[in-house]
This record gives sequence, structure tokens and C-alpha cells, in this order.
Amino acid sequence: MDEAFIKKLLDHVKNGELQPEEAVKQLKKLPYEDMEYVKIDHHRKLRTGKGEVIYCAGKTPEQSASIFEKLLAYNGKAMGTRADMATYQAVKERIPDARYYETARIITVDREEKQDAIGKIVIATGGTSDIPVAEEAAVTAEFYGNHVVRLYDVGVAGIHRLLMNTDKLEDANVIVAVAGMEGALPSVVAGLVDCPVIAVPTSIGYGANFGGLSALLTMLNSCASGISVVNIDNGFGSGFLASMINKR
Amino acid sequence: MDEAFIKKLLDHVKNGELQPEEAVKQLKKLPYEDMEYVKIDHHRKLRTGKGEVIYCAGKTPEQSASIFEKLLAYNGKAMGTRADMATYQAVKERIPDARYYETARIITVDREEKQDAIGKIVIATGGTSDIPVAEEAAVTAEFYGNHVVRLYDVGVAGIHRLLMNTDKLEDANVIVAVAGMEGALPSVVAGLVDCPVIAVPTSIGYGANFGGLSALLTMLNSCASGISVVNIDNGFGSGFLASMINKR
Amino acid sequence: MDEAFIKKLLDHVKNGELQPEEAVKQLKKLPYEDMEYVKIDHHRKLRTGKGEVIYCAGKTPEQSASIFEKLLAYNGKAMGTRADMATYQAVKERIPDARYYETARIITVDREEKQDAIGKIVIATGGTSDIPVAEEAAVTAEFYGNHVVRLYDVGVAGIHRLLMNTDKLEDANVIVAVAGMEGALPSVVAGLVDCPVIAVPTSIGYGANFGGLSALLTMLNSCASGISVVNIDNGFGSGFLASMINKR
Amino acid sequence: MDEAFIKKLLDHVKNGELQPEEAVKQLKKLPYEDMEYVKIDHHRKLRTGKGEVIYCAGKTPEQSASIFEKLLAYNGKAMGTRADMATYQAVKERIPDARYYETARIITVDREEKQDAIGKIVIATGGTSDIPVAEEAAVTAEFYGNHVVRLYDVGVAGIHRLLMNTDKLEDANVIVAVAGMEGALPSVVAGLVDCPVIAVPTSIGYGANFGGLSALLTMLNSCASGISVVNIDNGFGSGFLASMINKR
Amino acid sequence: MDEAFIKKLLDHVKNGELQPEEAVKQLKKLPYEDMEYVKIDHHRKLRTGKGEVIYCAGKTPEQSASIFEKLLAYNGKAMGTRADMATYQAVKERIPDARYYETARIITVDREEKQDAIGKIVIATGGTSDIPVAEEAAVTAEFYGNHVVRLYDVGVAGIHRLLMNTDKLEDANVIVAVAGMEGALPSVVAGLVDCPVIAVPTSIGYGANFGGLSALLTMLNSCASGISVVNIDNGFGSGFLASMINKR
Amino acid sequence: MDEAFIKKLLDHVKNGELQPEEAVKQLKKLPYEDMEYVKIDHHRKLRTGKGEVIYCAGKTPEQSASIFEKLLAYNGKAMGTRADMATYQAVKERIPDARYYETARIITVDREEKQDAIGKIVIATGGTSDIPVAEEAAVTAEFYGNHVVRLYDVGVAGIHRLLMNTDKLEDANVIVAVAGMEGALPSVVAGLVDCPVIAVPTSIGYGANFGGLSALLTMLNSCASGISVVNIDNGFGSGFLASMINKR
Amino acid sequence: MDEAFIKKLLDHVKNGELQPEEAVKQLKKLPYEDMEYVKIDHHRKLRTGKGEVIYCAGKTPEQSASIFEKLLAYNGKAMGTRADMATYQAVKERIPDARYYETARIITVDREEKQDAIGKIVIATGGTSDIPVAEEAAVTAEFYGNHVVRLYDVGVAGIHRLLMNTDKLEDANVIVAVAGMEGALPSVVAGLVDCPVIAVPTSIGYGANFGGLSALLTMLNSCASGISVVNIDNGFGSGFLASMINKR
Amino acid sequence: MDEAFIKKLLDHVKNGELQPEEAVKQLKKLPYEDMEYVKIDHHRKLRTGKGEVIYCAGKTPEQSASIFEKLLAYNGKAMGTRADMATYQAVKERIPDARYYETARIITVDREEKQDAIGKIVIATGGTSDIPVAEEAAVTAEFYGNHVVRLYDVGVAGIHRLLMNTDKLEDANVIVAVAGMEGALPSVVAGLVDCPVIAVPTSIGYGANFGGLSALLTMLNSCASGISVVNIDNGFGSGFLASMINKR
Repeated sequence: MDEAFIKKLLDHVKNGELQPEEAVKQLKKLPYEDMEYVKIDHHRKLRTGKGEVIYCAGKTPEQSASIFEKLLAYNGKAMGTRADMATYQAVKERIPDARYYETARIITVDREEKQDAIGKIVIATGGTSDIPVAEEAAVTAEFYGNHVVRLYDVGVAGIHRLLMNTDKLEDANVIVAVAGMEGALPSVVAGLVDCPVIAVPTSIGYGANFGGLSALLTMLNSCASGISVVNIDNGFGSGFLASMINKR
Repeated sequence: MDEAFIKKLLDHVKNGELQPEEAVKQLKKLPYEDMEYVKIDHHRKLRTGKGEVIYCAGKTPEQSASIFEKLLAYNGKAMGTRADMATYQAVKERIPDARYYETARIITVDREEKQDAIGKIVIATGGTSDIPVAEEAAVTAEFYGNHVVRLYDVGVAGIHRLLMNTDKLEDANVIVAVAGMEGALPSVVAGLVDCPVIAVPTSIGYGANFGGLSALLTMLNSCASGISVVNIDNGFGSGFLASMINKR
Repeated sequence: MDEAFIKKLLDHVKNGELQPEEAVKQLKKLPYEDMEYVKIDHHRKLRTGKGEVIYCAGKTPEQSASIFEKLLAYNGKAMGTRADMATYQAVKERIPDARYYETARIITVDREEKQDAIGKIVIATGGTSDIPVAEEAAVTAEFYGNHVVRLYDVGVAGIHRLLMNTDKLEDANVIVAVAGMEGALPSVVAGLVDCPVIAVPTSIGYGANFGGLSALLTMLNSCASGISVVNIDNGFGSGFLASMINKR
Repeated sequence: MDEAFIKKLLDHVKNGELQPEEAVKQLKKLPYEDMEYVKIDHHRKLRTGKGEVIYCAGKTPEQSASIFEKLLAYNGKAMGTRADMATYQAVKERIPDARYYETARIITVDREEKQDAIGKIVIATGGTSDIPVAEEAAVTAEFYGNHVVRLYDVGVAGIHRLLMNTDKLEDANVIVAVAGMEGALPSVVAGLVDCPVIAVPTSIGYGANFGGLSALLTMLNSCASGISVVNIDNGFGSGFLASMINKR
Repeated sequence: MDEAFIKKLLDHVKNGELQPEEAVKQLKKLPYEDMEYVKIDHHRKLRTGKGEVIYCAGKTPEQSASIFEKLLAYNGKAMGTRADMATYQAVKERIPDARYYETARIITVDREEKQDAIGKIVIATGGTSDIPVAEEAAVTAEFYGNHVVRLYDVGVAGIHRLLMNTDKLEDANVIVAVAGMEGALPSVVAGLVDCPVIAVPTSIGYGANFGGLSALLTMLNSCASGISVVNIDNGFGSGFLASMINKR
Repeated sequence: MDEAFIKKLLDHVKNGELQPEEAVKQLKKLPYEDMEYVKIDHHRKLRTGKGEVIYCAGKTPEQSASIFEKLLAYNGKAMGTRADMATYQAVKERIPDARYYETARIITVDREEKQDAIGKIVIATGGTSDIPVAEEAAVTAEFYGNHVVRLYDVGVAGIHRLLMNTDKLEDANVIVAVAGMEGALPSVVAGLVDCPVIAVPTSIGYGANFGGLSALLTMLNSCASGISVVNIDNGFGSGFLASMINKR
Repeated sequence: MDEAFIKKLLDHVKNGELQPEEAVKQLKKLPYEDMEYVKIDHHRKLRTGKGEVIYCAGKTPEQSASIFEKLLAYNGKAMGTRADMATYQAVKERIPDARYYETARIITVDREEKQDAIGKIVIATGGTSDIPVAEEAAVTAEFYGNHVVRLYDVGVAGIHRLLMNTDKLEDANVIVAVAGMEGALPSVVAGLVDCPVIAVPTSIGYGANFGGLSALLTMLNSCASGISVVNIDNGFGSGFLASMINKR
Repeated sequence: MDEAFIKKLLDHVKNGELQPEEAVKQLKKLPYEDMEYVKIDHHRKLRTGKGEVIYCAGKTPEQSASIFEKLLAYNGKAMGTRADMATYQAVKERIPDARYYETARIITVDREEKQDAIGKIVIATGGTSDIPVAEEAAVTAEFYGNHVVRLYDVGVAGIHRLLMNTDKLEDANVIVAVAGMEGALPSVVAGLVDCPVIAVPTSIGYGANFGGLSALLTMLNSCASGISVVNIDNGFGSGFLASMINKR
């Protein structure tokens, strides 16, 4: 999987610096760390450019805190998503410089040297209730060093609120459009700009929204070009992807 | 159910003009006509103001043609929806002044005195492929004597096409907004006007549109006010309802 | 979007009263008010005839109360839907003349001069459990100055309860028919009258009602004419739309 | 499963008339007939009072015809459902007294002595398009010797057509109510009578009827008592069950 | 709707004993009682043979208790379903002879003279967890004077438990088969008997049972004859219908 | 159903050791034990090789404990699944050697002589949150005497974690692959090995996972060969089936 | 992935027999063959014990025939599933010893030495219409050298047809149970035996079977142990898996 | 919406070169062209950088051909998707330099000067049957001037086919991963690279794939980062979006 790595091993074998048996073992020892309940993938950063992020939902505060520590042993920064206050407190106890974004439900630790935020990502929401998902996207994107512009409550039922902000939209390298209910915001946005639009359906609404299904289907069926969709309420995923695109 | 009718009967009974037994029979003989395969409801026009309309799908051309004849024996006009060319030809043979609207798949006969079209109904579509459903709505509304303005292919992915026509929208008494795919048109329209918007989802699209389900859910979950929804591809229903509202 | 507004600006520019640069700025400053978490659309009333209504679900009591205040700075009346008791108390503290409709879960403030209620809207329910949704519709319609007649618990399984009230139905300009479970009420009602029927499915029921889906599908597939449908449990939407139609 | 049969076997064993080994074999030879592609269950009539009926869909005309022959070797009557014209012709060739009901898509052969039809089953439909399913029920019920009254096109959107026939409904031992689209007929019928109502949803309709799902859910969620439901378009099942109840 | 009633009125009118205007009023005063939140249908018993039953879910204990009182003013017996302990206590306070069936969640009051239980209804369940729904059916059937035989935990995965009880099944006039999970019990039962089988899907199970949908679909698609289906967990409906059939 | 058993009975009858009437009774008394709320199937072990296992969800702690006692009267071991702590305590009180596996939510009692674990079952999970379901499978398999290897958190998004463990996979007789979210693990595993793979979808995830539906569909549609699927979160079923296959 | 292979390469590198650069290339040249439209995985047989099978649906007859040729260059046998007559003819032209199983829609070529069929797989169906899917399973299992016993049309609605064949079931190493409609066969079968049961839902049925969904859900929710499920109509997958288990 | 445009108009008004009335008209005449059945949006290219593309499905060959002509009057290139052979022939007649990509079902005309293809987009498929969708993506991306690398038939069930091509994946700026059935390809790909992955579910498969729903859900629930999803079979959308990202 890793041509250079294999090549170097083979060179060492050829030089006699390494026994074949040992080389085989090395090939198997790609750097992941096996805790009882999780395999931390320290190699992932090298392989995919993605540092390991902790999805805290479904883990105990203690488990999350302990994974945080392991990650920080190898990385200068770490992030936990879907984290409640109890998780934050468990992390804080071990890692005093941890920071909590309550609306976004994200914990971050960042010990790397501060760098200028890059490019421009616009994160827009249809309504007020969509903000927690949007903040998950925004904090994620900022964690990865992107410049983020928030444009909240610009849903299509009052279209001039969006149209009055077209200048902000036009400057963006990538736009994250977050909406529940009918989820029409990404379609209208994508019709106004020439950059990629990441559509995030939210579970906001009631009745025939079926937990976000309505907004999801709306976004998948958009007749505007340049849109793609992530899972319902997936703020992290959209923020991460926006960062990837913004940094190219 | 019909107070005046019962009252008159009772007066006749009181006057001795009618025997009680006979009155009971009369009460049962409300005017519908029992053909072998359909009960034509001539009374409906009196009761609900709606002349009987023939839903031709699932009937043979002969059945449809024969119902047309019966209706015209009592009414000056009749209409058949979801009618294919074969049905039209069967009707035409018996009723030479029948007229066929091919895109709308509607047959009409109208022998009543021409009257000025009333008020203004705007019928808008998101795309070109939605036009057959929109025409079913438009021809229906015109059949009932309404003035109809067509505004086709003004979908939200190119929002300025819609915005450039806001004057037409603002003049309307009621708007029928027809859209498939993501179905966002009615939301945007309802945010621009102060009249009722009838949303018609169409089955246009593919993949995750699930036969019109996506547009249907979008419209039901609209966060704009003043919107209500009819069945997928239900052009007739929307045109009929628009006529009801326009004529008030 | 607003021809008169643009025209006036241009006249001022022509007169030299306004610099072009300033005009551009003005064109962008359409009157909405940007609070941290919501963009209040004061312009909407002019544009669509709809005053801003607060959807309190998913907002904190404090947020809702503070939006109420902002709205009342521009309008003589305001309304909050899906409001629980805690929200009411937060509003009450700032706005002592706020009124709470517990069954309807609505808060209203109305400082405008009292006017005679207009026309007639009938609001019918299939059962007792549908009443909260019906009250949301009724209070909304009354808030907008309509005369409302309530006709509750007249479901189709005991059809004579409905038939004995046909006189009330026949007087209506528009009928809101609210039903859960099999949701057949609107079909029967629409067969008896010649005015628009707004069908409101509710989530009342169990098992295969799938949270209101059964009633929703029933209403969308009605073979009666003159029916349109709003979202499951959407009392506000139906009341608002009924008001629009009644006031024409 | 069959106490008397086992008892007789055991008596024979006791008498020495039957060897135990032979008795075991006998116990296994319950009377069904193994053709290559079907196991005809001649025993079923004894066991459940139900003669074997052939579901012709998915069988070749030749297969259906050949099963007809086998059945008639043991029974005085046989019936095939979902049979097209080609199947009828294949059956007719071998069994000249076979009869075809085209609308019901049923083939029957009946060589038993004619007996007076029993009791009264009313079969009602909401519309004209539901008649084929209703006829499948009616022909089935008549095949099993029941007196059937047809009451077609009495859907709830024109409720007086149904109410004018309440006398027919009140005489019934059991009612089969067949309806597509919104499927509300059984609810209203069950509110008028004190006999069991078998609800048959049909696939008639379009758009959000989702192939009969809408009518099915309506019927399952009926708030009237005394209703039960069979599969979409299952005319045979409803006719058979109605016969069972009528004959008690 | 009620020929005799109308006839008598008309006779009185003819005799001059009644003024026509008064007769019209009478025609409208069919006996239902309009409480604030419910229309009690005292006439239903005459019309459909069904005394009013209270569905307590979604009503306050006070509402339920007060309807109980009203019903008992006209009837010798009354029943409330889906009743929790709090409702029972509220009823008990006003009506000391009320009785509570905890597993079935039913409250009954029965002041009529005790009569011999009629015929035989067998109520079978697939598993232990289905018993509450089965008890709702059983208590309902017993309330209406039927003889009920319980046969619990005889699901198809241990088929001999069912087969060992075929004698009980064969004696029944009607069988209620209650099952969750795969819901196959009714199919096997119906293959063994010649009486109607009422299938009751339950919400018991997890994962892909989707709240009872799996059992519901299984039952609707049964290839056995003589089966019909009621809503998920609808014990009352199945017990009531079984009583109707058993009493014929 | 049980040839040997019938044969022996018949021999006894033939020998005059048993009266026919008595033999009939015996045939009916297959060994199941009828408690009020459950029929314990002691015969099942003989018939299917499966000892009765208690599904504790939906039973009271007392019911579960009491069934445990009954089972242990006939068997040397017993197991309860979906058991919470309260159930364990009720069992523990009566059966002091009961053992509780908290993550797996399983109670076991095992008084049989310890035997060597057989063969090799690998149980793999996609993520950390899938472990409870995997443990239900693992403890079940171990209860039945199988050798189990756990391989947790090897999901496809970091494929090298799986590839580095192919040696473990290749040694297995059968693999249980447990995954939520996109559920792709079984497909990749099955492409690497030549033994059966039992796929267990979990409900882990959010939004469009629809309670495990996404993983379920993924696994059913796998284009790899040798995969079959059990219900969502069905750890027990997969462990039991793996044991069956491993022991062949 | 292939330790021995890597080891040998490294030995050669160490011996100087292979240059590191060349070794890297070798590591990349695992044996698959890249045709324009498909990558034939000759290595799979070594890796997973599975020879490549051609899924002919969605490929042109020419494409399928040409893949057949390629496979036969490396293997002694090959199989194509979902093959229509046209595909068979195209294959036959190039490979005269190809054989077509019409009901199963399978093409096979087998040039390996005939060996005795192993063990016993029973393949059962609920009805006649399920036979094509069952035959796909049977022919597949036979192709891989297994002994197959067919037991068709033994559905649960006539349970004695199944019970009379329990001896056949009890001899099996693994059972494939194929059923459409209510799909209850696998549950009953698994309750009678102690071997794995592979459940195959079919799309046979109509109405609420929703293309096989009903049978699929039934099987997934079975309360019998030892069952797992494959995709709707997936005869091949079940036959292949049965072979895997039977051969252990 | 277009600040510079408005600014210029205002300057002209100020200069007296333009009357205010005329300016208002100008503001409304944004450049779209109103054909009878479509509004061609020539302005879109300026606004969003997207030339108008024709979605030919649901349009007659004549309509498509005529839109092609209009587009080419304003643009140097045009493209039609979902085009069958008949549409191509109609276009070809009017535009001889039109080119048809049969597998991709795309018609292109390109009269612009040829430029070097930019960057690198990898388009991968799980299987052979997914190629038409992949080609729609590939031809689209090439039409917009991107360098495309095709990597077909590398599905996860034979994971080494993908792993052997990781070098190609690692070079990409953006990857389009196309897969039907279980749709797991994008998850595995995204775990190997650090660029955005656009996931395209296809409708390839059968049974429980529900027309592509299975693959769609898989992709939405991916636990890998950097993935977003487009509609089922939406090759064009993915190709267009990939071009947008690649060109940044």
C-alpha cells in the first residue's frame, strides 16, 4: 500500500541490514495502537492527511478522554464530536487546555503553532434551529485552519435575505448549505454561484419530515449543478470536506 | 341532508298531497343514475357546485364515451381527464363537438354560453417536463371559466427567471406551483406573495425522487406560509381547487 | 423585487439627491433585522401580507421572548406557535399583555384595534384527540381576524354526527378538516360542500398509522375534489391558509 | 394431527392386522399428490373445509390446466384465480364445462348438484375501477354457494349514494368493502351496520397511493369497529372469508 | 337513515300532531350528547349494535371518568381500553364497581344480568410477550359475552406446541392469532382449521421488525385462506370482531 | 414427527403393554411444560439440538428467573439474553452460580463438565460502538463451547487495520462480521476468505441509517459470495448460527 | 496480504536474484486480468476458494461469452447466472460443451473430472412459483459438487406436507428454505432441525408483498434459531453458501 | 443581484443618459430566452460559470435539437445528457459536428479551441454494470476540460484489485466512486486518500437494492471522512462537481 515504505524495507533487506523474517514483521507493524475497545490509527494522518477524530457518541466520557490522551501523544491537535458536557469534563480533567464549543458539541485541543486561516468557506443555514449542525461544520473547518463566514437564517421562504448576501456567497471557495424542513436552500444557492455546494440536511421539522428524510431527498434531487450531500445532521463531515476542497 | 327538500316534502305530507309511504320513497330517490358500472351523481352539482368529471384512466373508451353522453343529457358541459387518444376518438364519434387537449390529456365539451374569464390564476412550473401536469391544471381552470396565466420553466436553480416575473405572481388570486425533482418552487413562490399557493409535486426525476415522493415531502415540509399540497401529478385537483378559490 | 422602491431610489439619484454608491447600499438594506441567531423579516408584512410568526419549538424561552419584543417594536401584534408554558412565562415577563392558549400551545399579543371577525371558517375534527391541532388552527385564524366555528368529534365512523351538522358546513367559506387514524373526514366533507377543504392529518393513532403517514396518504389520495393537504399536525399552516382564502 | 386416524391405525396394530413398521409408513402417507411442480393437497378439504384453489398467476396455462384435471378427479368443483384468457383456453380444451369470468379473471368448474344460495353477502366498491377486484370476491363467494348483492360505485366522496342504500347494508351477514385511492369506504360502512366488514384495499389510484399502500393503511387504521383487512387487490381472500362467516 | 323513525315523524305530521318545522328539528336531534370535547353517540347501539367504548389513550383520567359516567346513564355496561392505573383510579372514584384488567389495560363496568357465555373463541399467541395484546382481545370478547379459550406461547418455531393443541383450534368458531416478530402463526393456524382467523400483528421484536411492520406484512401476504388482519397491537378490534362473528 | 418415538409406542401397543387410548394420550404429551405465561420446550433439545434460551426483554425479572429455574431442572446449562442488571439480580437470588456479562447483556449458568473449546470463530466489528452486539455473539458462541477470536474496530474506512489481520481471518471456520453505519465490513471480509461470513447489521449511526436499515441493506446486497445476514443487532442469532457451522 | 508470497520475494531480493525495483513491480502484479470492461480475478480462487462466477444480467451476450472463454483458460469450470437464452447461444457458439439450465437461468461448463457429490443439502420451497429461485440455488450447489435434495411446494399453509418430510430435513447438513408471500417456511423448518437454515425470500406475491420485502422481513425477524438470510431472489448466493457449509 | 450591472445603470441614470423608467425595464431584462417550453438561461454562464446543459430525458428529439441550436448561438459548446439515439440523430441533422457517446448517453458539440486537460480526476466503479453511469461522469468531466483516469471494476469484494491501484488514487485531485449493490467502494477509497471523494450510487442490483436505495444509504452513512453523495445514477452531477473541484 505504501510504495516508498516497501521500497525502503527492500533496500534494507538487500543491504543485509534487515533479515527477510524481520521485514515481514515490519510490514505487518503499520502504526496503529490497539487499545481494548478501539484501534487508533496513527498512520491515517500520513496515509490520508486526516488526523483521527473521536466520535464521542456511544463512548463513555472515560473512554473518550483516554483516546484524547493517546492521540495527543502523537499529534499536536485532536478533536471530539458529538460530545456532551460530561465528556468535556472528563477530558478537561486530563487535558486542561481542552476547549468546548457547546452549540457545536465539539471538544478541541490545539497545541500547534497558530497559522493564518486559509481561503473562504461560507456556512449558511435555512433557519435558526439548524445552527447547531452548522456550528459543528464551522468549528470543524476552523479547527483545520480554514477561514469561515457564517450566514445563518437565510432560508428560501424569505428569499431576499439570501439575495442580499450574494456577495458573500460569490467570494466563497466552497459553501456548506445546512437546512431542515423542505431543505431547498442548497438548490437556490447553487444556482447563484460557481463553487461546490455541500448540502447538509438536518432533522429539524416535524410530521412528514420523517427525521430529516424530506430535506435529504430534496437535496439529492436538486436540479442545480455542483451540489453533493452528506448524512442528516452531519456537520462534521461537511466541515471536513469543505476544508479539503478549500485547501486545494 | 337537504333541509329545504325535506321541508317541502313534509309540507306536502301535511297538506295531504303526499302519503307518508310515498314521502319515504321520495326521500330515498335523490337523483343519481345507476348505470351498470357507475353511479352518475347528477345531484352533486346542486349539492357541491361540482359537475361530475370523468376520470378516464381505468375505463374503456366506450365506457368513458357513454358516461359523457349521460352527463351531457343533464349538463351543458363535461370534462374527461387522463384521456388518451383512443378515448378521445370514441367520445368524438358520439359527440362531434368534443375537444382534445393532448398535452393535458383532457377532453372537454362546452355548450354553455361563453362568459368572461374571471380573476387570475397563475400556473408556474419548475421545468419543461412538468408542463403536462401544469396543462392539466390550466385546462381544468379554464374549463371552469377562470383566467389563467402560464409561467413555465422558472425553477429555483435559476432563481432570477422567477424573480423577473414577480409582477405576474403578485397579481394572482391564487398560484398553482408545479414541480418535480426537489420540488422547491412553491416555497420560494409563497415567500414572495400574499395569496394561497397550491403545490403540485410531479413524478419527474429519477433515482431518489422515488416517483415524486421527494417533491411531495419537500412541499409538505415547506416553512413558507400559505401553501397546501395535492397528490403527485394531480393537475386536475389543483386546477379545480384554484378555480374554487379564485371564484370566491 | 420591489419596483416602486427601486423607482424612488432612481428618482432620487436622478435628482442628485442620492449618490449612485449610496443607492447601491440602500438597495442592499432591505429591512430585515439581524439578531445573532435569527434574521427578522420586517419587510415580509409589506411583501407577502404575512407578519412574522415565531416557531418556538427548538428555541430557548429567552430567544423566543426576545424575538417577540423585536416584532412588537414594528408590529401591533405577534404570535408564537408550539410554545410551552416555560416560553409563555419568559414572554409574559417582558410583555405582560401576552396571552396563552394552552391546548393550542400558542402565545399571542394583540394591541391593534379590535375589528369584526370576517366571514366563516369551519374547523372540524374526526375525534377528541385531534383537538389540540384543531385549536392551533382555530386560534391562528382568529388571531388574523376570522370568524371560526368549531365542529369537533364528527369522524366518519359515526357519520350521522357529521350529517346532522351539514348546515354549518354549507355556510363556510373554507373548511379545515383535521383527522388522525384513517383520516377520512376531509373526503366526506368535501363531498358535501362547494368550498375549499384544507385537510390536516394528525399523528393520532398507533401501529400502522406510522406517526400520521396513514392519514396523510388518505388525504392526498382523496377522490373528492377541492381538497388540499398540509403537513402532519400543522394546525398553524392550515389556519393561516384558511384565513388567506376566507379574506379574499 | 388426526386423532381418529391414528386411533384406527393403533387398533389395527393391536389386532395384529398391521405391523408396526407398516403403521409408521401409513402415518406418513397422508393423502397429497406429488406432481413435479406442485403438491396437491386433497386432504385439505377434510382438514380445513377448503377445496384446493389454483392461483394461476406464475403458472403456465398447461400447468394450471393439468392441476384442474387432478383436482376434479377428487372433487366435484374447482376454481382458478388470476387466470388470463390463454389459461382459460388451455383449461377449456381439457374440461369443456369450464366457465370463465373475464372481469373477475376466474375459471370455475362446478359439477355438484345446485343448491340454494345461503344468507347474504354485500360487496360494495368505492368506484368503478375497483370492480374487477370486487368481482373476484363476488364470483368466489358465489362459487361457494353464497347469495351475493353487488353495490358498486358508492364511494365516500358522494356519501348519499351509500346512505340511500343503507337498507341493503343492514340486511347483510357480512360486507366486503372494496376501495382504492383513499380507501375510506369500509370505515363509513362499519359505522352504519352491526355485521363484520372485510376491507379490501385496491391498487387503483396514482402518485402517493404507492400501489395501494394508502388504501391499505387507511383501512388498518380505521376507528370504526368490526373491520379487518386483507391484502391489496385480494378479491379471492375476501370472498372466501366472507363465505366462511356467512355460512356459520 | 332510519326509516322507521322518519316514518313515525311523518305520521305525526300527517296527523297534525307535529308541525313540519318541529319535525325538521327532530330529524336533526338524533341522540348524541355533546360534551365539550366529545360527542357521545348513544344512538350507535341502536344503529350498529355497538355500545360506545372509550379509547382512553390521549384523554385525561378526568375526561375518561366523566365519559364513563355519561355512558352508564344510558347503558348497563361500559368499557375503556388503553387505560393506565391513573385512569382506573379516577374512574373507580366515581364508579366503585369498575374493574381493572392490568395486563389488558382495560376498565369494565357491567351491571347487566349475567348471561351464559356464547360459542367459542380461541385466542392464541406466538410468544409470551404478545400476551398483553391477546388479553386486550380476550377481555373484550368476554365483556361482550363470549366464551374464550386462551392458548398462549405456541409460535411456529416450536410447531409441536401448536400441533398438540389442534383439538382446541378445531372446536373454535373463530380464532384470534396474535404474533410479533415474523408473525407466521396465523398462516399455520389457518391451514389447520375451517373457521375465520383474525390475525393481530404486534410490535414485539426489534431491529427489522420496524415496530410491527414485519408481522403486519407477513399476515397480509399469507397464502392460507380465511385470514384477515387488524392494526398492529389492536387487541380490542380483534376481540370485538371475533365477538361479532362468534355471535352470528 | 419423531419416528423412533412413534415406533416405540406402537411396539408397546402391539405387545399389549399399552392400550391404544393411552398411546393416543402419550402422543399428545410431548414434553413441554406449561407455565402460565410460557410453554417451555424441553423437547427442543432432542428435536433441534437447541436448549431453550430465554429472551429476557419484555419479561419481568421474576418471570425470567423462574424460567431459568425450570430450565435448569432439565438441563445442565441455561442462558438469558437482553438481560438487564435487575434481571440478573433476580436470577442470582435463586441461582447463585449465575454469571452476568454486562456488555453482552447475557446471563449464563453452566454446570456441565468443562470441555475444550472447538474450532475457531472470528468475531469482527467495524467500530467500537458495535462491540455490545459482538459480545452478545461471542458470549453465545463460547457458551456453546466454541473457541472465539475477537477482532474489534477494523472497519473499512481504515482498511489496513483489517488487512493486517488477514491471518486471523484465514484460520477461521466461520466469521461473524458486525457493523453499523455503512455496514461494509462483511463484503470486504468475504472477499478475503473462503469460509462462511455471518453479517450482523447494528443500529449504530444516526440520520439516514434509519435504525440500522442502511447496514442491513448493504449486507443483503453484498456482491461478495458466502455472506448471509441476521436481524439488526441480533448478536445471539449470529453466535448461535456460527456455533452450528463451526461444530459441523 | 500474502505472507508466503512476500517472504519468497524478499528471499530473492536478499539472494540478489531480484532487484528491489523489480520486486515492487511484482508485488503489484497479482494475477488479475484487465479486460476493457471487467477485471477477472484469477487470484480469487487461491485467495477465497471461489472461482469467478459471471453475473450475466446487465452484460451483453458477447461480453458474457468472452469472459467465459477467459475464465476457462485458467479454470476447469465456469458458471454464469441470470443468463437468458440469447446469452446461452452466444456462449454455446464459442464453447460447445456449455450447458443451460432454463428454469435456473444458469449456464455451466465443467471439464473437471467428475467426483462424488458430497454430504446433503436440502432445498425446500413454499410454493410452485418459488421454484426458479430454488433451482438457481440447486444448480449452483450441484455445480460445486454437493448432493442436493429438492423438496418443493411444502409451504406452511398446509403444514402436514412439510411434516411428512421431516426425515428428509433431519438428514441435511444445511437447508435452503425458499419462500415468497409471507415467507414463513424457514421459521418452521428451523424449529424442526439442528442444522443451519439459509432463508431465501422471493419476490413472488402481489400487493403488500412490495417486491419481496414482506418475505425478507419475516425471515429476518424469525424467532427460530439457526437462520440467516440472503437477498430477495438470491438463489446463487444461497446455493454457494450452502456448499461452503456442507463441505466443511 | 449583480452589483456592477446595477451600478452602471445608475451611473447612466445620473448622467441623464437613461430615464428611470427605462432603467427599471433594463433591470428586468436579464438575458434569458423564452422559448415556448423552456427558458434558456444564457446568463447562467456569467452568474455561475455553468453553461446550460440539456437534460434530454422527457423532451422530444425535436425539442432537444432546437435547444441545442439556441445554446450554440451564444456558446462555443453544448452538451445533452440522457440522450438516446433518436435524439442524437435529430441533433446531428441540424448540427453535423455533434458527437455521440453511446455508453454515456451524451451528445456534445465543442467548437472552442482545444486546451490542455487540467489536473486529474479518477473515476472508479465497483463493477462492470456501473460503467454507463461512470462514463456519464467521465465524458462530462472531459467536456469541461479535465484530465480523467478510469479505474473500472475494482469493487470491495476483491479488495486487492483496488489496492493494486492505490498509486492512481493517490495522484487524484478528486475521485468519483461509482457503485451499485452494497455501494461500499467510496468508503474504502476515502480511507486510502486525502482528496474529496464524490460517491455515486447506481441502481444496479436486484431485490433489496430497492432501485439504488441500498447503495445510497451505504454512502450517506459512510464512516470515512471526505465523502459526499449525489443522486442515484447521477453521472453528470458527479462529473460536473468533480470538474469544479479539480479546477480550483
